[in-house]
Amino acid sequence: MALAEVNFFSQTLMRTVPFYAILPCDKTGFDGKRQENTPFKTLYLLHGIFGNYTDWITGTRILRWATDYGLAVIMPSGDNRFYTYNKANGEDYAAFIEELVYETRDMFRLSHDRKDTFVGGLSMGGYGAITNGLRYPHLFSRIIGLSSVLHFPTTLETMEDMPETPDCYPFGRTFLSTIFGDVKNLKESDKNPVVQAKRLRAAPAGILPQLRR
Amino acid sequence: MALAEVNFFSQTLMRTVPFYAILPCDKTGFDGKRQENTPFKTLYLLHGIFGNYTDWITGTRILRWATDYGLAVIMPSGDNRFYTYNKANGEDYAAFIEELVYETRDMFRLSHDRKDTFVGGLSMGGYGAITNGLRYPHLFSRIIGLSSVLHFPTTLETMEDMPETPDCYPFGRTFLSTIFGDVKNLKESDKNPVVQAKRLRAAPAGILPQLRR
Amino acid sequence: MALAEVNFFSQTLMRTVPFYAILPCDKTGFDGKRQENTPFKTLYLLHGIFGNYTDWITGTRILRWATDYGLAVIMPSGDNRFYTYNKANGEDYAAFIEELVYETRDMFRLSHDRKDTFVGGLSMGGYGAITNGLRYPHLFSRIIGLSSVLHFPTTLETMEDMPETPDCYPFGRTFLSTIFGDVKNLKESDKNPVVQAKRLRAAPAGILPQLRR
Amino acid sequence: MALAEVNFFSQTLMRTVPFYAILPCDKTGFDGKRQENTPFKTLYLLHGIFGNYTDWITGTRILRWATDYGLAVIMPSGDNRFYTYNKANGEDYAAFIEELVYETRDMFRLSHDRKDTFVGGLSMGGYGAITNGLRYPHLFSRIIGLSSVLHFPTTLETMEDMPETPDCYPFGRTFLSTIFGDVKNLKESDKNPVVQAKRLRAAPAGILPQLRR
Repeated sequence: MALAEVNFFSQTLMRTVPFYAILPCDKTGFDGKRQENTPFKTLYLLHGIFGNYTDWITGTRILRWATDYGLAVIMPSGDNRFYTYNKANGEDYAAFIEELVYETRDMFRLSHDRKDTFVGGLSMGGYGAITNGLRYPHLFSRIIGLSSVLHFPTTLETMEDMPETPDCYPFGRTFLSTIFGDVKNLKESDKNPVVQAKRLRAAPAGILPQLRR
Repeated sequence: MALAEVNFFSQTLMRTVPFYAILPCDKTGFDGKRQENTPFKTLYLLHGIFGNYTDWITGTRILRWATDYGLAVIMPSGDNRFYTYNKANGEDYAAFIEELVYETRDMFRLSHDRKDTFVGGLSMGGYGAITNGLRYPHLFSRIIGLSSVLHFPTTLETMEDMPETPDCYPFGRTFLSTIFGDVKNLKESDKNPVVQAKRLRAAPAGILPQLRR
Repeated sequence: MALAEVNFFSQTLMRTVPFYAILPCDKTGFDGKRQENTPFKTLYLLHGIFGNYTDWITGTRILRWATDYGLAVIMPSGDNRFYTYNKANGEDYAAFIEELVYETRDMFRLSHDRKDTFVGGLSMGGYGAITNGLRYPHLFSRIIGLSSVLHFPTTLETMEDMPETPDCYPFGRTFLSTIFGDVKNLKESDKNPVVQAKRLRAAPAGILPQLRR
Repeated sequence: MALAEVNFFSQTLMRTVPFYAILPCDKTGFDGKRQENTPFKTLYLLHGIFGNYTDWITGTRILRWATDYGLAVIMPSGDNRFYTYNKANGEDYAAFIEELVYETRDMFRLSHDRKDTFVGGLSMGGYGAITNGLRYPHLFSRIIGLSSVLHFPTTLETMEDMPETPDCYPFGRTFLSTIFGDVKNLKESDKNPVVQAKRLRAAPAGILPQLRR
């Protein structure tokens, strides 16, 4: 098993950003026999609000778990941005997830096969996993949403009731508008996973990722 | 000399963020004699656009230079935000620099003395160093601006002439408004170092930081 | 809380070596109120055989635990050397632990008080914690030994019965001699914690560290 | 370009060890156009005495240079061991270099072609590059030796004249014996690059790596 802390230049975010990668590459045990590796199955794993790329490594035993299952795991920073996009401020953390898949395939020996590529996350990361899993179904065959934040797309339209600057900063109107952009018609947009899933029903058979909560 | 890659929770940014720290703490050389250390003089050193906290370590020989001069160096990420603030989106990278000073003094054995505390930077980081050095003159006694971006505060008011989405993403109207907020009266605001310096002239003697370009 | 990955030049090992440090320095919670920090209580925490400085961070939730208890934690690499010394090959990983205490106090805002300074470890690290806790009782007031390797000092004298190169490399005669040096009279040496503890009984009252297994 | 700090379990050293990797994987520039990457040409780059895997990153601008030339660079720690082996203490830092080639090919998208694989180093690392380049000529097509330490194999036989414990620790008899093992006949062994090169002359044409000093 190898643990890599990587910094690379993201074209989407137009700056150098860090992530952690787990690579299950040295499963030889103590007999000293090297095992022929095939390109790794890969999980893109998204942290929750207030955290960053270090969360999964320091807060869980993901390294051991991934090694046991022979799974590569890629853990980027979400910068409290919900892994979504906002045209008004030029940021696109959704496209960043797509870019991350291609870039990490360039770096590491990862499988390029959709059926070997998964996306998962916790809380804010659960929202990111579900919406990006449904946004890029040609990339991801499975989605794991843990305690996912799913109410925003349907509740933000009534955001006038929210305090401008609440006790807990990111949950006020100001910041949520920065993240999600204009909240009108948000419920009907591709930032609502229900809308996304309905659209995918009309897509060719088999392209809807499997969802595990 | 010690090089530390640190992740800590920023109250200002409300998320875990990384920075690099150089600590000139083992200046013993090969005679094996330990030298009594006093709290370190400290330079807060800000990178330019498109980069992050790793820039100074990977792109220069700052580690050697800082060791030679017995200087601690703290290098945060600026996230293309010019180390300034924008009330409209709730982000305050200026206050983050202030927080960083207090937090790193809690972590490391740094001098708390204004005369031992400096801020410097390159390009976007030069703008950040000059404006925050003048914004927090009780913290910083010297400012180093290298190829500093200084035209924005006076040119952004005519931003209508700028393309919305230029070839090079961060320099369009959209992104610059996200960073600097409402650009009206920007020239008269504390985001313009000329305004800042004029105000400081009226302050008690000796509080204006020395500027080296 | 801050997590720092540090590389520094060790005079004892005569090379740059990495360690992880946890610093419980930003216990402000979400009310935004900064808390006056006193210098941190500190635990030097030693990993087991086959591992390195990353073990505790990736294999446990030590970061959360240390934050909850307001404890700094310093985690060096042991290089399969049992945190002991061998004059025959010029290596002294015992003195390295002592050096690490002084060096980290130079770097970070750690308490210099013996009663705030602890050493602990798992398996090989448990042996290192117990023997160095008893070797440097003026530094450490408490010792934590988890599944500590304690049989070596009494069993290595009969090492002739051991295979030269066993299935599992570090446990053959060759390597153990490299670590522990001449194994004759090892049982009577300060590499045997029973001998160390007996000697300390004759020392001034209160200098024997408390041991928790 | 990506910079990765990696920790992996080395079968040869029987412990987790760190290295830095540069991957020239995102050569897209500012036009946003992704470039099809072929597996990377790779340089294994070895640091000098007293240093570790961080030396090349912090002390040079190798990151920029490697990016400009489209070269992957792998930088391990040498632990003052001269990248050689010593049967007497069970350590084999020569085999570690071989293992590192195979392991990094499992992790990253590196060319497996001998003609795309190089080894280089400075001082102690120059000795390591030359001797391992000649030891594993099926792996490396080119060797770069910078200020290489080449006198040891021919001078250590008269080591009796050396001080046991000199001012500068690693250069006494004790430590050098630990590294190089029994120094008798060292001049005639495969730890002497002259002997290695002579042997390779008898090997099939084209297998002798090119050497650049």
